[in-house]
Amino acid sequence: MSGRVLKRLVVGRAMRSDKLEQTLLPKRVALPVFASDALSSVAYAPDEIFITLSVAGLSAYAFSWKVALAVAVVMLTVVASYRQNVHAYPSGGGDYEVATTNIGSPAGLTVASALMVDYVLTVAVSISSGVQNAASAIDFINGKEVEVAVVLVILLAAMNLRGVRESGTAFAIPTYCFMASIIGMTVWGLTRWGFGDLPQVASAKFDVPSNPGFSHGLATAAGAFLILRTFSSGCAALTGVEAISNGVPAFRKPKSRNAATTLLMMGTIAVTMLIGIIVLANKTGLRYVDPDSDMSRLVLNGVHGHQTAPGVAMFGGFEYDQETVVGQLSHAVFSNFPPAFYFTIAATGVILVLAANTAFNGFPVLASILARDGFLPRQLRTRGDRLAYSNGIMILAAGAIVLIVAFDAQVTRLIQLYIVGVFVSFTTSQIGMILHWNRHLRREEDRRVRGRMMRSRAINGLGAAMSGTVLIVVLVTKFTKGAWIAIAAMAVLFILMRAIKKHYELVREELAVHEGDSDVATLPSRVHALVLVSRIHKPVLRALAYARATRPSILEAITVDVEPEETRALQQEWDAKDIPVPLKALDSPYREITRPVIDYVKSIRRDSPREVVVVYIPEYVVGHWYEQILHNQSALRLKARLLFTPGVMVASVPWQLQSSVGAENRYDGPRAGSVRRGIRRS
Amino acid sequence: MSGRVLKRLVVGRAMRSDKLEQTLLPKRVALPVFASDALSSVAYAPDEIFITLSVAGLSAYAFSWKVALAVAVVMLTVVASYRQNVHAYPSGGGDYEVATTNIGSPAGLTVASALMVDYVLTVAVSISSGVQNAASAIDFINGKEVEVAVVLVILLAAMNLRGVRESGTAFAIPTYCFMASIIGMTVWGLTRWGFGDLPQVASAKFDVPSNPGFSHGLATAAGAFLILRTFSSGCAALTGVEAISNGVPAFRKPKSRNAATTLLMMGTIAVTMLIGIIVLANKTGLRYVDPDSDMSRLVLNGVHGHQTAPGVAMFGGFEYDQETVVGQLSHAVFSNFPPAFYFTIAATGVILVLAANTAFNGFPVLASILARDGFLPRQLRTRGDRLAYSNGIMILAAGAIVLIVAFDAQVTRLIQLYIVGVFVSFTTSQIGMILHWNRHLRREEDRRVRGRMMRSRAINGLGAAMSGTVLIVVLVTKFTKGAWIAIAAMAVLFILMRAIKKHYELVREELAVHEGDSDVATLPSRVHALVLVSRIHKPVLRALAYARATRPSILEAITVDVEPEETRALQQEWDAKDIPVPLKALDSPYREITRPVIDYVKSIRRDSPREVVVVYIPEYVVGHWYEQILHNQSALRLKARLLFTPGVMVASVPWQLQSSVGAENRYDGPRAGSVRRGIRRS
Repeated sequence: MSGRVLKRLVVGRAMRSDKLEQTLLPKRVALPVFASDALSSVAYAPDEIFITLSVAGLSAYAFSWKVALAVAVVMLTVVASYRQNVHAYPSGGGDYEVATTNIGSPAGLTVASALMVDYVLTVAVSISSGVQNAASAIDFINGKEVEVAVVLVILLAAMNLRGVRESGTAFAIPTYCFMASIIGMTVWGLTRWGFGDLPQVASAKFDVPSNPGFSHGLATAAGAFLILRTFSSGCAALTGVEAISNGVPAFRKPKSRNAATTLLMMGTIAVTMLIGIIVLANKTGLRYVDPDSDMSRLVLNGVHGHQTAPGVAMFGGFEYDQETVVGQLSHAVFSNFPPAFYFTIAATGVILVLAANTAFNGFPVLASILARDGFLPRQLRTRGDRLAYSNGIMILAAGAIVLIVAFDAQVTRLIQLYIVGVFVSFTTSQIGMILHWNRHLRREEDRRVRGRMMRSRAINGLGAAMSGTVLIVVLVTKFTKGAWIAIAAMAVLFILMRAIKKHYELVREELAVHEGDSDVATLPSRVHALVLVSRIHKPVLRALAYARATRPSILEAITVDVEPEETRALQQEWDAKDIPVPLKALDSPYREITRPVIDYVKSIRRDSPREVVVVYIPEYVVGHWYEQILHNQSALRLKARLLFTPGVMVASVPWQLQSSVGAENRYDGPRAGSVRRGIRRS
Repeated sequence: MSGRVLKRLVVGRAMRSDKLEQTLLPKRVALPVFASDALSSVAYAPDEIFITLSVAGLSAYAFSWKVALAVAVVMLTVVASYRQNVHAYPSGGGDYEVATTNIGSPAGLTVASALMVDYVLTVAVSISSGVQNAASAIDFINGKEVEVAVVLVILLAAMNLRGVRESGTAFAIPTYCFMASIIGMTVWGLTRWGFGDLPQVASAKFDVPSNPGFSHGLATAAGAFLILRTFSSGCAALTGVEAISNGVPAFRKPKSRNAATTLLMMGTIAVTMLIGIIVLANKTGLRYVDPDSDMSRLVLNGVHGHQTAPGVAMFGGFEYDQETVVGQLSHAVFSNFPPAFYFTIAATGVILVLAANTAFNGFPVLASILARDGFLPRQLRTRGDRLAYSNGIMILAAGAIVLIVAFDAQVTRLIQLYIVGVFVSFTTSQIGMILHWNRHLRREEDRRVRGRMMRSRAINGLGAAMSGTVLIVVLVTKFTKGAWIAIAAMAVLFILMRAIKKHYELVREELAVHEGDSDVATLPSRVHALVLVSRIHKPVLRALAYARATRPSILEAITVDVEPEETRALQQEWDAKDIPVPLKALDSPYREITRPVIDYVKSIRRDSPREVVVVYIPEYVVGHWYEQILHNQSALRLKARLLFTPGVMVASVPWQLQSSVGAENRYDGPRAGSVRRGIRRS
């Protein structure tokens, strides 16, 4: 199967620019596409809340619903703020655009760096958590978490290379299934509780003693710090809010209103699910510790467990395999209806993997905007096949794979790096919005409009204060636990993007045509053509013919004298064939090809600086990369080197070998030939 | 530090072709350079003999000196045979040349495949054994054997990239030290034994019970097979004999006589050392089992050891760390003079690492000869810097590293793959020599000369019979133990080299100029020049000027209309600047650059097939690879694709950005500029 056909199969057929409009999303599809990240975090945010509280012992679990409530308040505040953004900036630059326009380029770049890091983390965390969930159901995955996670990332990337439209349809069903199952579980569980029929979860029989530092409860500085850290982890539920504001252009018209409505729906649903799970956990006596390192903190009848694998502990002869919070709850709630348990677990596993898709939607768009502004290489700007931003998708996948491998696909370790970026972005963006309203208020006269603006400014001000506070909390409580890695990555990205921008600007300045630059366009006085000859064969004869056709002022054939005998033989054949171009042999005491040619070219330029030298290089064109290894190596090296010599043009004269026929598609750009040839055009 | 300076430091300064003569070696340097492989094998061949015999229990050790004697007989026969080769073929094609000339190309290719595989194994086995020896002296290496071995291979490769001359000097001293220490140890040990003063080695206190299958001694089929397998492993001492015959051209004149003398010296010394070690081992009560898997076969006071690490076993509270055979012997022999023990161990460790150097001398020469004959890519033919064959050296190092990593640097596992290749080569070569003498005898009249020839033929016949027998023994006894891997590798190499040769022949045929091929040299009727424009800057203006200077029949500037707005702006600026070349915009409904250009070029060719199309591509030249990522990506893709289109030339018009100044040396071929600029030329 040729590479082209393979690509068509994976990526689907190419789309014309004028089909761009058709990939716009209705609300019912946009919600699952852009909100699956925020919604899915209820599958791991409660776990992290209980893991963190476990350090202070079981009594600390009483704080879990207070923490959840705090997270819900932050969530709703941020959602309200972003509804203002969406209305003010319908073009979808999102936080980056808001920060750049209102505060300035460094602020915008800070936001961009933060968001890019967090997109990568979203993929890594969601996929790792999905695999962790799946591992409790599918034995085969145990011990192969990293490999499975990497394969999933690759599959997701492939799906996204096919384009956002199919993603929408493919992701809608599982997202709705997940919402239905979590909310259904909450309703069913609370109903059973109301009838006094709700069973305890499997972990209810364990005790979790407090660490020595917390023997006096949480009413200490350490206790307060722990609760703040719990709150930080719970704030993972807020990632993804910005995805909608970045993605406004993908909505159907009226874009802003549809996006704002979707945002509110998302916020409400996420908060409902989070609080539902926390309440259920309290009612069913759930205990949850870090499966990767803390299993021995569980105590059964006064005996500490002995951790034997991630999530597994032995208590004498009894083995306990800790399921995720959602797993334990649905086990208990649906104890009288097992199919619903399996449905919930399956939906959770799938939604987590699909949540990563939010990042696959957001990251390439952001990268493309940054590339447009010159902060990233130009290749990222180009829309690839299927109207998706292929390069960005591949970079995102690569980054996530690196994180998954580096952190062994362990959710609790990855989550320490998470959220910093989102809250940097939230805070900067909300400050930008305040400046935005200030500016507009200076010009606006209409009282009613001014009133609306001031209300919006107040909401954004509250959002800025709230998210700024959360950012400080997150930084303080998580810095040494891993957040410093995320911050370092942001700093590197920031510096890198500044450098790229500066490079492009310098080059643009260097290349700009100014008034006095008439010499650039001056015609060279004469053309001195050189044809490179190794032996006499068809490619050389063609190169000679083409070179002669351009009628240069001077035309010479040159050969490099590496093996004197071969050179003599060549000269004799040249004379015998009566070729009407003089053949010149260049000395090469060091058996090189490149340097003698360069030196000769330089000497020509030295003697007549106003001449242009054209070096004709006969090249074989072969059909396969492995044939390429067998040919043209000296030619390639020479070409690379000649480009550094001023006043020289390098003309490749290709000779297509039979094996090259039909092989050109392998070298095609992002769009292969089949559509043009009408094979698949409908 | 620039790449060029770094290269000079590692590789030393370049040499002119006419200095080739000066790198020829006197016998006293050639012996250590070419014979270190064969000599060093006495550091592991006895170990393998005892390891293999251990299976049949301690009583089987009585066969060790008989096996050693058999190996010595084979060694001397093969040396005698190769003295005939060296005289008959002083040009140094070695076994490959002998087989090709006298039997035919497939036989030569078989020999070449076999030798190449064995060169790689020589490096892997010698380095692994050297590291194993060093590990018993230097604690740090324990557990890091693979890493240390890989680093050593890389260092050796770097040394060889500096050229054979320095190698000779650098390798002579340790080789002579090794010879002195082993022979000195033998003499000193036998003297002490004569005075009844020779102590037992540390391992003498152990018993080694026989495996169940050998409870009736070695007088069974299994016993005979075991002895043959022991003999096979002992024949590792013979690798490297062919190195001298391949390397005849590196000897001082009279080349053949010097090489033959060196061969005899080498054979005598190797045999002496091998037998000396076996005798000493018997006198000192040595026991030796496979350190990687068999430590538990040792029995102390009726108790089996418990293997805890490679070479380490516990006997209750007592830990036994097994040293190599040479280590144990020199410990015992020099018990009254410890400095000599350390000297011997150091010399052994160093010689083993340096033995790999034999392969680094032989492999690139062979690869270069094969490349000359078209069996390997042409790049391998080129002498790189310092008159060494850089490409071959790097391939050899890469192959050895793969083996070391794959086999965990375990000598006993690697040795199972070894020797097959050498004996394939020995046997084929000796058969070739018989045919050689037959041919010469048909033409030779002089009785005295005929007598000499018949004597040589008899020696080669004996050599062929002997090495053929050994080859069968090796194949039978080692096939399933790992020799099949070596044979499979040889087969793959054989097929690959045949395919490469065939490819080159097909291409040569396809490109050959025959009588009727006048159309190749026909001048195109007209030149149609296209200049690719993205926006108006200096590189584009220069490309336009150069294109105009060649005075084409038709000259057009073309741009691809990806973003209609940008295209309109470009067109306006074009008109405003009054550029005297028409600008044409090509439609691109799929936002591509490449295809619209290709289609346009094809349409020109379709309308007037006798025109040649020249596409001028303005390119930025930058100084660093990371800048390259930021530029020219579309241009590179377009160039690659245009080469597949018949009747097209691609002319790169470079614009050197400031960052490119001075960077051209990074793109240089194997010889950088400093020598030419007189910095280091003396």
